Amino acid sequence: MDNRRMPYAGLEAGGTKFVCLIANGPEEIFAQARFPTGPPSETLPKVIEFFENHRPFAALGIAAFGPCDLDPRSPTYGYITSTPKPGWENVDLLGTLRRALAVPVGFDTDVNAAALGEWTWGAGKGMDSVVYVTVGTGIGGGAVLSGRVVHGLLHPEMGHIRVPRVPGDSFPGNCPYHGDCLQGLAAGPAMEARWGSKAEELPPGHPGWDLEASYLALAVNDLTCVLSPRRIILGGGIMNQRHLFPRIRREAQKLLNGYVRSPLILERIEDFIVPPALDDRSGGLGAIALAKLATEQKWGQA
Amino acid sequence: MDNRRMPYAGLEAGGTKFVCLIANGPEEIFAQARFPTGPPSETLPKVIEFFENHRPFAALGIAAFGPCDLDPRSPTYGYITSTPKPGWENVDLLGTLRRALAVPVGFDTDVNAAALGEWTWGAGKGMDSVVYVTVGTGIGGGAVLSGRVVHGLLHPEMGHIRVPRVPGDSFPGNCPYHGDCLQGLAAGPAMEARWGSKAEELPPGHPGWDLEASYLALAVNDLTCVLSPRRIILGGGIMNQRHLFPRIRREAQKLLNGYVRSPLILERIEDFIVPPALDDRSGGLGAIALAKLATEQKWGQA
Repeated sequence: MDNRRMPYAGLEAGGTKFVCLIANGPEEIFAQARFPTGPPSETLPKVIEFFENHRPFAALGIAAFGPCDLDPRSPTYGYITSTPKPGWENVDLLGTLRRALAVPVGFDTDVNAAALGEWTWGAGKGMDSVVYVTVGTGIGGGAVLSGRVVHGLLHPEMGHIRVPRVPGDSFPGNCPYHGDCLQGLAAGPAMEARWGSKAEELPPGHPGWDLEASYLALAVNDLTCVLSPRRIILGGGIMNQRHLFPRIRREAQKLLNGYVRSPLILERIEDFIVPPALDDRSGGLGAIALAKLATEQKWGQA
Repeated sequence: MDNRRMPYAGLEAGGTKFVCLIANGPEEIFAQARFPTGPPSETLPKVIEFFENHRPFAALGIAAFGPCDLDPRSPTYGYITSTPKPGWENVDLLGTLRRALAVPVGFDTDVNAAALGEWTWGAGKGMDSVVYVTVGTGIGGGAVLSGRVVHGLLHPEMGHIRVPRVPGDSFPGNCPYHGDCLQGLAAGPAMEARWGSKAEELPPGHPGWDLEASYLALAVNDLTCVLSPRRIILGGGIMNQRHLFPRIRREAQKLLNGYVRSPLILERIEDFIVPPALDDRSGGLGAIALAKLATEQKWGQA
């Protein structure tokens, strides 16, 4: 079979579930499966079996929960490094799957992959500069600039920026590393700890949503100042509360206060701060995009 | 004369002075001049005269104070846009010099150019990901990722991120747009307003320096989380106080608190947070680097 006609395999290795896809893009998904994230000795054989049963495919892309090692020159490239998840610390995720499946493998974090997925097929399609932020059990972000996912020393950890307190908010924050970093103040578990019930159970009129919008607007402000992106895509479970979008846009405009003089911010902020176009498939389709890049030899090469 | 053997012309168009250079790099500076920044009708003819008298050169690079228009597709590309500086609003800086000198012209902000200069010849040489921050009369930052200066919607405005208050600090901040953004709390004029004397007159033991280091460490934390760079270069007038570096490093390590598990941060933070290698020439030499890129047609092309 001609490589160019084979589909791609994608694995979104998430903290709660592993999603396997065989696809060419959002319009061509040929097979998929979900497995709850158990210990590696249980979960990885299921993943391998699924992909074995769906050959041939040209390459595999892995969108992994982190922190993980993205440096192709490192001896632990493709490992999950430090994680509180039982059994997953120092697991060679990329190597295990590459040995089992013997195809080219692309590898990145789940949120970088989601940014890439949205850039390839979704709300950031073709833009020279786009940021994707997920707000759920944690907060993370990835950026695609000039068609490349931003890496560096390790990978971005956008959820751990420090933001000012919204006046009157005395919740201490619950990030185990930083207390009141953005994630500690505004991820799902912070909302639950603050209000005593799960975020999705709070009605749209609950004051917790205004507070949440204020913190996410601070994040938008900082990402705009550091990266000057053309679009900020806000996804993840919390952002399924679509009523957050107008509140965040309004607050972000207030914070930027006319300083960044772009019509996109001053007049069309609904085109600047947007939901994902791929819904909950940004990460899985991002893995497919990683697989595609792996065959183009732009990815994961030392 | 063979183009490849001609030197380059560089203009650092700063808020207080314009610096003109004829050079090939830091080891080959053939001529230079400085003019105080007056109104355009006074300053630009001096600049043009200097360059006319130093022909031939292969190209000109302009490192401009901002905000300015960096979008080559825009009708106001190369203009200084909104500035409180008398006479400079909506001035076609690039066009004026290109028409007068008739050479290829590269154009970027002063701080982006400084980042490029440090990446080309200085403290960020050859790194795949480096951030340069200037702390002086304002705070600004530029990033070079994979050899490209980060642009996007406009250009980064890193000095306008919002950071939490250091406990006990009640100074309202003096950014005309945002009050207590980073620049409003930690640029030179904020130090002066807070302590009643110019920053450079405060002795190293003054508590203002610990406060300053705390705010700059918050900036380092946020830039590390958003960009994950291999190095953060801190320059500008305030950073001539070299005693700030160990304080900022210590505070940044405390803030990151072991979360970003790189030896560079955990063990060798003196290699992560560094002063510029080109001293006060980062911007001027960055303009030379912009000129070089303009001849390679990688820059300023629509």
